Amino acid sequence: MIRTHNCGQLNEKKINEKVVLCGWVASRRDHGKIIFVDLRDRYGITQLIFLPKPEELSSKAKKIRSEDVVKIKGVVNKRPAKTENPNIPTGLVEVCVEELEFLSRSEELPFELDKDKEVSKELTLLHRYLYLRKPEVTKKFILRHKLNQNVREFLNKKEFLEIETPILTKSTPEGARDFLVPSRLQPKKFYALPQSPQLFKQILMVSGFDKYYQIARCFRDEDLRKDRQPEFTQLDIEASFLEEDDVLKLTEEMLASVFFQVLGVKLKTPFPRISYQDALEKYKTDKPDIENNPVSGDYRFLWVVGFPLFEYNQEDKRWQSLHHPFTAPDSESVEGLGGNNLAQLKSRSYDLVLNGEEIGSGSVRIHSTEIQKKVFEILGISSEEAEEKFGFLLRSFKFGVPPHAGIAFGLDRLYAIITKSESIRDVIAFPKTQRGISPLTGAPGPVSENQLKELGIKKIEEE
Amino acid sequence: MIRTHNCGQLNEKKINEKVVLCGWVASRRDHGKIIFVDLRDRYGITQLIFLPKPEELSSKAKKIRSEDVVKIKGVVNKRPAKTENPNIPTGLVEVCVEELEFLSRSEELPFELDKDKEVSKELTLLHRYLYLRKPEVTKKFILRHKLNQNVREFLNKKEFLEIETPILTKSTPEGARDFLVPSRLQPKKFYALPQSPQLFKQILMVSGFDKYYQIARCFRDEDLRKDRQPEFTQLDIEASFLEEDDVLKLTEEMLASVFFQVLGVKLKTPFPRISYQDALEKYKTDKPDIENNPVSGDYRFLWVVGFPLFEYNQEDKRWQSLHHPFTAPDSESVEGLGGNNLAQLKSRSYDLVLNGEEIGSGSVRIHSTEIQKKVFEILGISSEEAEEKFGFLLRSFKFGVPPHAGIAFGLDRLYAIITKSESIRDVIAFPKTQRGISPLTGAPGPVSENQLKELGIKKIEEE
Repeated sequence: MIRTHNCGQLNEKKINEKVVLCGWVASRRDHGKIIFVDLRDRYGITQLIFLPKPEELSSKAKKIRSEDVVKIKGVVNKRPAKTENPNIPTGLVEVCVEELEFLSRSEELPFELDKDKEVSKELTLLHRYLYLRKPEVTKKFILRHKLNQNVREFLNKKEFLEIETPILTKSTPEGARDFLVPSRLQPKKFYALPQSPQLFKQILMVSGFDKYYQIARCFRDEDLRKDRQPEFTQLDIEASFLEEDDVLKLTEEMLASVFFQVLGVKLKTPFPRISYQDALEKYKTDKPDIENNPVSGDYRFLWVVGFPLFEYNQEDKRWQSLHHPFTAPDSESVEGLGGNNLAQLKSRSYDLVLNGEEIGSGSVRIHSTEIQKKVFEILGISSEEAEEKFGFLLRSFKFGVPPHAGIAFGLDRLYAIITKSESIRDVIAFPKTQRGISPLTGAPGPVSENQLKELGIKKIEEE
Repeated sequence: MIRTHNCGQLNEKKINEKVVLCGWVASRRDHGKIIFVDLRDRYGITQLIFLPKPEELSSKAKKIRSEDVVKIKGVVNKRPAKTENPNIPTGLVEVCVEELEFLSRSEELPFELDKDKEVSKELTLLHRYLYLRKPEVTKKFILRHKLNQNVREFLNKKEFLEIETPILTKSTPEGARDFLVPSRLQPKKFYALPQSPQLFKQILMVSGFDKYYQIARCFRDEDLRKDRQPEFTQLDIEASFLEEDDVLKLTEEMLASVFFQVLGVKLKTPFPRISYQDALEKYKTDKPDIENNPVSGDYRFLWVVGFPLFEYNQEDKRWQSLHHPFTAPDSESVEGLGGNNLAQLKSRSYDLVLNGEEIGSGSVRIHSTEIQKKVFEILGISSEEAEEKFGFLLRSFKFGVPPHAGIAFGLDRLYAIITKSESIRDVIAFPKTQRGISPLTGAPGPVSENQLKELGIKKIEEE
């Protein structure tokens, strides 16, 4: 290590110690011949002081600019009375610098990192590395890290296994659009990026893993209106031999544990539940933010249950799944799969709503080949189409499938709410714009005709 | 929960308790009129016994087939003397069944799940859900989970942050091939899947995150000879204000901690080091498995250090990086970047070798724009090309870049060695064949002309 401490560690106990610090220059203030520098890293800010002598050092210090990366040697001193800053952990001390080394210099910044200065979204995306240095932005990613790790710890203790599922997989017709990846080894064939690990997590249940989770990357090639990203992160959970209530309780226990451990917030469980029908009737929405929610002042969690199994698409004149085609009908609705009252059928699905936003959704799955076939028939999915698109799931069901259920949470959305961020972009290190562009890297970019030729494809020429 | 216990929990303390178990039928044995069934789940095997009466139950039990999923109610009994199986935790008890329910039936299996039966690789990939049920296979994924979580725990304690980097990014010229993803919102432009988070982890250092890691999915569209997969998992680590020895020590401490916690194996640290030149001279390889390695009997870790910075590509008649273009030259070699003795220059890189296989590789990175430019010149990368390909990294370096270093480990390879697996396929839940095909899902698959048209591309017709 080329430093002895980080910029958040020095305090009164270290007075008179010789230290080496490294960090970014947050500010320089010249008070007559004395120069003060705030040195910043992820851990905090330490005040440096350069005395008028030796002159060589003092004149070197005068060249210090904001965001230069420097290494200093010095002695920890108590700050003079009335110059302390009790608001930060290092606020009672300063380091009197004896040696200064520029590790790298900064050019003039495209924007200031001050908390109160507004920065255009374009600039924060183009110079993401600068925006991420802002302490209040850095904190969001430290929090995201802690939340993720606490979720993992909770699920690990409950004997859930984190298992990685493929990113290069097969196109499935789940509504929204798949990103395609041309294969070079299999020319003119394409992988698809998963919209979720749905089929794989069900296969993992058929494989007997019993309790699965994954903090999984998912992809959707949709028009990015609203607050969406082409790639997003999902906490994906599935378990065997359990029912709706078990998933709801597990979720409540997990969120209560994580919110308390990381945020110090006590959530009152169980969360209130409302039926889909009541939600629509009373609040005109399937994700209401109800009054007098007892869970927590800041965090108004609510379960919405009893969704219809199907909804009629007037435009296409066909029935479609309200959730997805693997959602189980409730026991009273199984019979109705053969009937004409499809709009009345209810599913065993549940959505978790937080402050009026959907942050989780799941269901008990169909584990009967017969029921699955009937659902496909209603959805107008032919047996050939079913075989082609998810034949592998149906095939696996022939060899002993356990009853299973699960849920998936949109972590970007959840973390944006927790950090009171305007957009999910604020909790994604390297997000894209609404047009799917990364101003930082310039992705997506042009590729050569030759690269495409190897894949057996070419660009369509303009007419 | 529809069960009271799992199949690994019952023991003498539970005798006389009424229990509900669920699981897969591992075997059925009829001893006269008494029927024995081994019920299996991820946690273990419990012996069920069906008595001759009531006859209705007994005749239902006679229909039980291997891999049926059943739910039973019954009473825990002590096994009769001399019928105990002391080799399994549940071996002193059996459950006398009172109720039996088939949750789902299994057709005849394409292969038996017995430990000793050889199964063709094709079948294990096609019916992956069956292969994964084999207890010795399941164990590998439980171990993989524990190893991953222990790695995270270790790094979390050291204040490393796990930060997610993009999967949809820009093509970079790091040697091997990128998978391309056509963009619909930006027609005729392409994302690339990352071969590693290399550029992003360096940008995270410029962003001040100080200590980063990620268990990251990486992609390479290479010819899959040997034991390679188009997508693989890497433990990616980067930190600021540190040097080679810090990375080596961190790695040794991490592996010693994880191996002890998960495997009960004590690794002797520090690991031995050998120079690249000595390795080549003495062992004719840059990843030797040296005699009398003191680290551990089963795990012969070895650092290889002092690699050349460049190697000459005879075919293309040009210099190329032995590691990658961001690898720092050692202090003695910096001067030589302007000279003619390029073959003599050494880099600040290090490889970790385990039992003769490379499982990790890293370096101190260049943090000087000047040195980076000289390296690009030697590699024949024009400033336009550098700007286009990784201009964003070079741009970030203008605003204060800390000295930084890192390492990346191939987790699939490491876990294959630990589990004594023949192939990395054995530690990947849903692997692909050497031709990049998933026999389970059928990926990659055909897509429609319309899907391609939306992306602004079409297939090249055969001549």
